[in-house]
Amino acid sequence: MTTPDYRAILDTIAAEVAPLLPEGRVADYIPSLAAVPKHKFGMAVHTLDGRRYAVGDAAERFSIQSISKLFALTLAFRQQGDALWRRVGREPSGSPFNSLVQLEHEHGKPRNPFINAGALVVTDVLCRHFVQADVALLQFVRRLSGIADLNFDHEVAASEAATGHRNAAMAHFMKSFGNLEAPVDEVLSSYFHQCAIAMSCEELARAMLFLANHGVNPHDGQRLLTVSEAKRINAVLLTCGTYDAAGDYAYRVGLPAKSGVGGGIVAVVPGELAVCVWSPGLDANGNSLAGGYALERFTTLTGRSVF
Amino acid sequence: MTTPDYRAILDTIAAEVAPLLPEGRVADYIPSLAAVPKHKFGMAVHTLDGRRYAVGDAAERFSIQSISKLFALTLAFRQQGDALWRRVGREPSGSPFNSLVQLEHEHGKPRNPFINAGALVVTDVLCRHFVQADVALLQFVRRLSGIADLNFDHEVAASEAATGHRNAAMAHFMKSFGNLEAPVDEVLSSYFHQCAIAMSCEELARAMLFLANHGVNPHDGQRLLTVSEAKRINAVLLTCGTYDAAGDYAYRVGLPAKSGVGGGIVAVVPGELAVCVWSPGLDANGNSLAGGYALERFTTLTGRSVF
Amino acid sequence: MTTPDYRAILDTIAAEVAPLLPEGRVADYIPSLAAVPKHKFGMAVHTLDGRRYAVGDAAERFSIQSISKLFALTLAFRQQGDALWRRVGREPSGSPFNSLVQLEHEHGKPRNPFINAGALVVTDVLCRHFVQADVALLQFVRRLSGIADLNFDHEVAASEAATGHRNAAMAHFMKSFGNLEAPVDEVLSSYFHQCAIAMSCEELARAMLFLANHGVNPHDGQRLLTVSEAKRINAVLLTCGTYDAAGDYAYRVGLPAKSGVGGGIVAVVPGELAVCVWSPGLDANGNSLAGGYALERFTTLTGRSVF
Amino acid sequence: MTTPDYRAILDTIAAEVAPLLPEGRVADYIPSLAAVPKHKFGMAVHTLDGRRYAVGDAAERFSIQSISKLFALTLAFRQQGDALWRRVGREPSGSPFNSLVQLEHEHGKPRNPFINAGALVVTDVLCRHFVQADVALLQFVRRLSGIADLNFDHEVAASEAATGHRNAAMAHFMKSFGNLEAPVDEVLSSYFHQCAIAMSCEELARAMLFLANHGVNPHDGQRLLTVSEAKRINAVLLTCGTYDAAGDYAYRVGLPAKSGVGGGIVAVVPGELAVCVWSPGLDANGNSLAGGYALERFTTLTGRSVF
Repeated sequence: MTTPDYRAILDTIAAEVAPLLPEGRVADYIPSLAAVPKHKFGMAVHTLDGRRYAVGDAAERFSIQSISKLFALTLAFRQQGDALWRRVGREPSGSPFNSLVQLEHEHGKPRNPFINAGALVVTDVLCRHFVQADVALLQFVRRLSGIADLNFDHEVAASEAATGHRNAAMAHFMKSFGNLEAPVDEVLSSYFHQCAIAMSCEELARAMLFLANHGVNPHDGQRLLTVSEAKRINAVLLTCGTYDAAGDYAYRVGLPAKSGVGGGIVAVVPGELAVCVWSPGLDANGNSLAGGYALERFTTLTGRSVF
Repeated sequence: MTTPDYRAILDTIAAEVAPLLPEGRVADYIPSLAAVPKHKFGMAVHTLDGRRYAVGDAAERFSIQSISKLFALTLAFRQQGDALWRRVGREPSGSPFNSLVQLEHEHGKPRNPFINAGALVVTDVLCRHFVQADVALLQFVRRLSGIADLNFDHEVAASEAATGHRNAAMAHFMKSFGNLEAPVDEVLSSYFHQCAIAMSCEELARAMLFLANHGVNPHDGQRLLTVSEAKRINAVLLTCGTYDAAGDYAYRVGLPAKSGVGGGIVAVVPGELAVCVWSPGLDANGNSLAGGYALERFTTLTGRSVF
Repeated sequence: MTTPDYRAILDTIAAEVAPLLPEGRVADYIPSLAAVPKHKFGMAVHTLDGRRYAVGDAAERFSIQSISKLFALTLAFRQQGDALWRRVGREPSGSPFNSLVQLEHEHGKPRNPFINAGALVVTDVLCRHFVQADVALLQFVRRLSGIADLNFDHEVAASEAATGHRNAAMAHFMKSFGNLEAPVDEVLSSYFHQCAIAMSCEELARAMLFLANHGVNPHDGQRLLTVSEAKRINAVLLTCGTYDAAGDYAYRVGLPAKSGVGGGIVAVVPGELAVCVWSPGLDANGNSLAGGYALERFTTLTGRSVF
Repeated sequence: MTTPDYRAILDTIAAEVAPLLPEGRVADYIPSLAAVPKHKFGMAVHTLDGRRYAVGDAAERFSIQSISKLFALTLAFRQQGDALWRRVGREPSGSPFNSLVQLEHEHGKPRNPFINAGALVVTDVLCRHFVQADVALLQFVRRLSGIADLNFDHEVAASEAATGHRNAAMAHFMKSFGNLEAPVDEVLSSYFHQCAIAMSCEELARAMLFLANHGVNPHDGQRLLTVSEAKRINAVLLTCGTYDAAGDYAYRVGLPAKSGVGGGIVAVVPGELAVCVWSPGLDANGNSLAGGYALERFTTLTGRSVF
């Protein structure tokens, strides 16, 4: 397979998505997210052989939100391995990311680690293994990215906590089923902080390379996951990483990917590269509207996809 | 990547699955399926460069059941392209393959073409394009496999019709939402015949090669789907092909796959090969119990997976 | 308690509801129902001591639709007694009258005999006891009312059958759970005919007197139900008789009542009288809009209610 | 109607229910409830003309639990009248008393004031009108019963709070929909205290007389509700007062009634009397098993029922 001209491709995509930027709907449930201008667009590609490409606002930090669920899953998976799946499933949910219906039907076991309920269980696992789970996660993301100055946006975390009644409902609900060990308040606080890490497209692309690299962190050469484990995380990403649009993403994009309501989406081409796109306007499923189109074009123009 | 020793790998797998054969539960809702002995196991691998491997009962025909949904989808997709998705979704269902709940919540539009309701819509599309939809599908499968003497098992089709009240319920239900054009009886009859095609592992592996081959039928060199379309069918297989265990299959097996209650499972390694495994004992999700384990071992031993 | 001046009360109500008549929405899923003028309004009161009052279009026949479910239940209950409740519940449904969701969650046992699924089970019971269940029911309603020339509106019955895919879906669905004995087509045909009986307010009030009279048919003096059985039918009417508005009817009207999409509503004051109101415009729950208001005023002005 | 011999009837019932006492299952989610001996049974009848009858453990106090929901509803209804129904429905739920599914489907508006979610909304209303809602309710129940020394069982309230994660989940969930005004912790604390009021059968029968008496408190002659309002509360009791068994209670018992997991059930015969029965063993719906049978026998032996 020939190497694509990533520079030209990113430029093409940036031009193509421009008309889409006004169409999405910026998340507005907390002021810090609502204040992000809709016209922002950035995209970064980092390859395993060390090349880096970026376009637009790829250096600007935004709230990674649910993309943190992927880092939290990786950290918890390293602690517990397949035992983790006794407490959280790995099936697509077939319903919105914050539904309590499924949780009631399945007795407090969330369908997968990328819906909110599942991420709360993963956070609970981290609370058990680390004195300060949110700090441990932040340090893990610093390690994955090789970037020391990553931090929480404390204003975002505080806003999430103040409005997070649905997440509190889910946490208490799972607690009532016995599927939460730490105190509800501790889990929620840690969860809200994780979601409030601020990163740029370039930083996220760097932090995702270990998944493209079959589990080895390219920044320090250390193995974080076995080859098999890395593949499995990719599998969960592909089937569950984009809320109730996972089938649509597999169909249109064809890469393991994780999105967040901050407008970021990360994806990997196994064995080759990591890519991150950011645009704050969301579609009806809560995924970045322009970001999804950008990734679709990226796999079409590069001929890359897992299928 | 080195070429695996498929012969040795199939022998290893056949030995490993032997203890599992008694554990599954053979489908018993119709006599013809219930009569199949539980100890049957066959597996076949056909590569794009023409090598063929088989083990066990790989030459014995069985009822392909829901594997036919993949062939029907391919045929309907060739007729309608992306317009097809206006009538059937491509998201994992998050519920059993024959649930009416989702259908009610989503106003008669099935979640994907591989749950029964979705396959009925696909069949309805075929009923519109062909005078005899079931015969058209049979001829298409003959063409895909290059095997002329494939046929319906009419006894199975008759039994399905006699006991198919849940499928009839779904068809009438979708008709009430306006999402079925042909008469209910015609759609059901065609659907029951499609499911009743009898094929062996070797024949199914042959018939699946076009998907591994990016849309070109290797038996006659004709393009059936564009490269992009073939990838997209693979994507739908990966996210929706194994009922409510698609996430589990992606995690454990990592290949686009389609299963049937007859105990068969087909899968492809894009660009490389097609594989079919058969063992009639099913797990709780309705997938072949030994078959699922065999595919998991296959991807582990060969190092093949899309991730 | 003083005897109300029913004549004056009916006149008052007829004047009060006039402005409401244009507001409802006439059922339009079949032409015969859609053709009924919206301004129709009739009301009839028949007391156990033989007085009869009527206002407006009380002598005009309309399609009784789901009111027939009450007569069918009474007839089936006479055949089977409490054994009937093994196949159909007697709890309010908490959902629309034609939902399949509940049926799936509760394995094919309908919540009560007044949602469509429950009425199909009741009809199945009649199909088992009578050679022609619909004719048997018609004769029973003739007997209840003492009116010999009641008949099916065959045009309505045919239209119902042609558009009745949701009812067919429910029948097949229950058949798949083993909760339907007769052939689906026979049950459906009988059901559609029952719904298509045509009666006037005066005729329905006459036909309901046996329930006000603790089970004795006042027209021939024969006991149809024991005192206890009559009370129990009234209880099921109060809790389940008006679709998902039973709580609202108990609150506003406070009488056992049964409605139909033809715009009729029947109710009884136990020990005293039967009342029927008709107006074809329906509210969001499928009950006659003006009819519901008329009954609410009736219990307020007469001081009658079971509470 | 002749006056029944209530003394003899209560003795008969006490003898009849004895064999049932071991069958129920005592609520065990908190130690104070689990410790109540299963063989307890008491029943009290208070008539509007001043007669009082009791049998068994009718003088022993128990935790009234959800019976408090009736008193809270009455108090909130006095404050808000029909405006209350904008925030809570009055339809039977068709599902367990503590389900979150309905709440999600209906956007945070509980189906009725007698499921837990609805009672939390009612409590929220009280929190808005009173500085200390739980104390206000306690004083209201003292007034209804004319008994000054009624109190909370603080141990029960503390246990409820410690294990009340499902109620916390519901409160946060409704808060997320904007249907809770007071802080979640305040509403929960007040709710848990209300449920923890301890009363005997005799005291509860006394406290219910105002509903039999069309809204006038017989202990002080003051009108608490209009005649119409009292009827309406009775209507909500009949259709929603016994969890997902309201249809069954209407059918078997035929009286407005409210039950609690402490094993108590209160009921009224409008215009005549109030009755309370207590036995801690519960049936599958969470209603007192022996208590339900006792009420069924009571209406059969007395010939009283609203139908």
